[in-house]
Amino acid sequence: MKELCIGIDIGGTNTVIGVVDIDGNFSAENSFSTKKYKKIDAFIEALKIGIKECLDSIKTNYILKGIGIGAPNGNYYNGSIEYAPNLNWYEIIPLADILNKHFHVPVVLTNDANAAAMGEMIYGSAKGLDNFIVITLGTGLGSGLVVDGKVVYGHDGFAGEIGHTIYDPNGRLCGCGRKGCLETYASATGIKRTVIELLNNSDTKSILIDIPEDELNSKDIYEAAVKGDKIALDAFDYTAKVLGLKMADSIAYTSPEAIFLFGGLALSGDYILKPTKKYMEENLLKIYKNKVRLELSGLMGKNAAILGAAALIWKEFD
Amino acid sequence: MKELCIGIDIGGTNTVIGVVDIDGNFSAENSFSTKKYKKIDAFIEALKIGIKECLDSIKTNYILKGIGIGAPNGNYYNGSIEYAPNLNWYEIIPLADILNKHFHVPVVLTNDANAAAMGEMIYGSAKGLDNFIVITLGTGLGSGLVVDGKVVYGHDGFAGEIGHTIYDPNGRLCGCGRKGCLETYASATGIKRTVIELLNNSDTKSILIDIPEDELNSKDIYEAAVKGDKIALDAFDYTAKVLGLKMADSIAYTSPEAIFLFGGLALSGDYILKPTKKYMEENLLKIYKNKVRLELSGLMGKNAAILGAAALIWKEFD
Repeated sequence: MKELCIGIDIGGTNTVIGVVDIDGNFSAENSFSTKKYKKIDAFIEALKIGIKECLDSIKTNYILKGIGIGAPNGNYYNGSIEYAPNLNWYEIIPLADILNKHFHVPVVLTNDANAAAMGEMIYGSAKGLDNFIVITLGTGLGSGLVVDGKVVYGHDGFAGEIGHTIYDPNGRLCGCGRKGCLETYASATGIKRTVIELLNNSDTKSILIDIPEDELNSKDIYEAAVKGDKIALDAFDYTAKVLGLKMADSIAYTSPEAIFLFGGLALSGDYILKPTKKYMEENLLKIYKNKVRLELSGLMGKNAAILGAAALIWKEFD
Repeated sequence: MKELCIGIDIGGTNTVIGVVDIDGNFSAENSFSTKKYKKIDAFIEALKIGIKECLDSIKTNYILKGIGIGAPNGNYYNGSIEYAPNLNWYEIIPLADILNKHFHVPVVLTNDANAAAMGEMIYGSAKGLDNFIVITLGTGLGSGLVVDGKVVYGHDGFAGEIGHTIYDPNGRLCGCGRKGCLETYASATGIKRTVIELLNNSDTKSILIDIPEDELNSKDIYEAAVKGDKIALDAFDYTAKVLGLKMADSIAYTSPEAIFLFGGLALSGDYILKPTKKYMEENLLKIYKNKVRLELSGLMGKNAAILGAAALIWKEFD
């Protein structure tokens, strides 16, 4: 009989539910607004109904292997969402436990970047790899480290915050309250800050000057770079310089076989990939040179959040 | 019957052999000059004889569980010493294989810092811990990362080079040919460089000025600090500032429960420990604050290299 997993991506705006097989084919999908639920109990009811609707819509026979959940501040060890700043419920929510009691299948929960790493392993470019890193370049920089085929969770479930390693102790103010974190440079938000700095500090003409600051995004910067805009190209180069240096550091920690870039900024393709690879190699210790692949995620363009969440189940219970 | 392991520490100057039980009691010990052997074959013969002499000297009955080896550039995966710059034989030496063929017991080989991490787990302060880091502050800065109870080796056996993560891209020249590596600041050699810089760039009086540069070592700096010497105290503060910042980064990678400091500079005790802890906490992301222990190694004053090497066997085959 066909085996299926549920993948759930809980975001600040929407919650998306998907039912997928081991090859990543979707049997059902559903979504609803996360942010309209001010109380956690109401959200959980909506989630249960959403899952049930998904399952009821599947007409073939199947075995449900489990439910995987990717959520901000998701803690793998206790299956809880803990004080997520971007959700309405600033508390500890033992969601894995709640869904297990209701559906009686294994439920695994972790943060988005760790789910992305698992997704890369089951559905993406990390098939067969035991040691790799996934970097998500979105609003911030998330990271999932895989060592010996397992996601590194650390003693408290919070390992893998490469976005908050420090590039410059006197550098840019970060949302975490500290200065110079990697993600203030290398993320969709980081490259935007770089463009604004470059525009303010040079007389170089740029088509980006016409876009209001609060509307400027990494897609605009990519499109300007494609047109040869010098500010945009310089911004990619600077972002890559910082990211490349820090990827060289990352390799010195876990010596991965590959690093995969994912997220909004990674959609810029070679504009971010090529210079990052150049700077990474320049900064690598000799024993690591020319043997670590830096590539775009194999999940680009796919429903990666759902696949990553579902991958948690395939990985643990298969 | 009593179970024993052999631990071997291959250093550039001497090779030390010890036979120990699970509690760290020595049944026999032996050592000989490493550097007098210009040819690897002659060294291996001497090593075999040294081991045999050790075993022959034990008068009780015992079971030999295996041989653990800590060696510079030791690769765990293939049991080889690979192009170690501080040894006379700049080649690949499949030492684990050679000793296994001769003694017919399991032989495990890794680098010194990874052996130190295993030693900490079996004989030191990391008993019962599954996630921790050992930092050896000697001529350089070595590191052993333990995740889920296992040393992180990475895809090629060379993981855990925190000493070569970059603190300042425009900083001090490192022996590896790059600039600003952590170990150029935080190591016995690093603090010496800091003292020399401070002496050259200030008019502050210091008892360290009377020691010729090529004789100055971290023990002198420690003793000066104990006497209240401002240059020595400033050097400890600067070293701790760099090390504390980078330990905060390290925690963001693997979220360990504890970090243990070992090696010559760690003999300075609170002079290095207290300020490093202060700077580490200052630089930690909020989720990690006040929950990671920074301590001196539990192997200080013990024959840690031998215990670490022997621990490789206890850990893998028990």
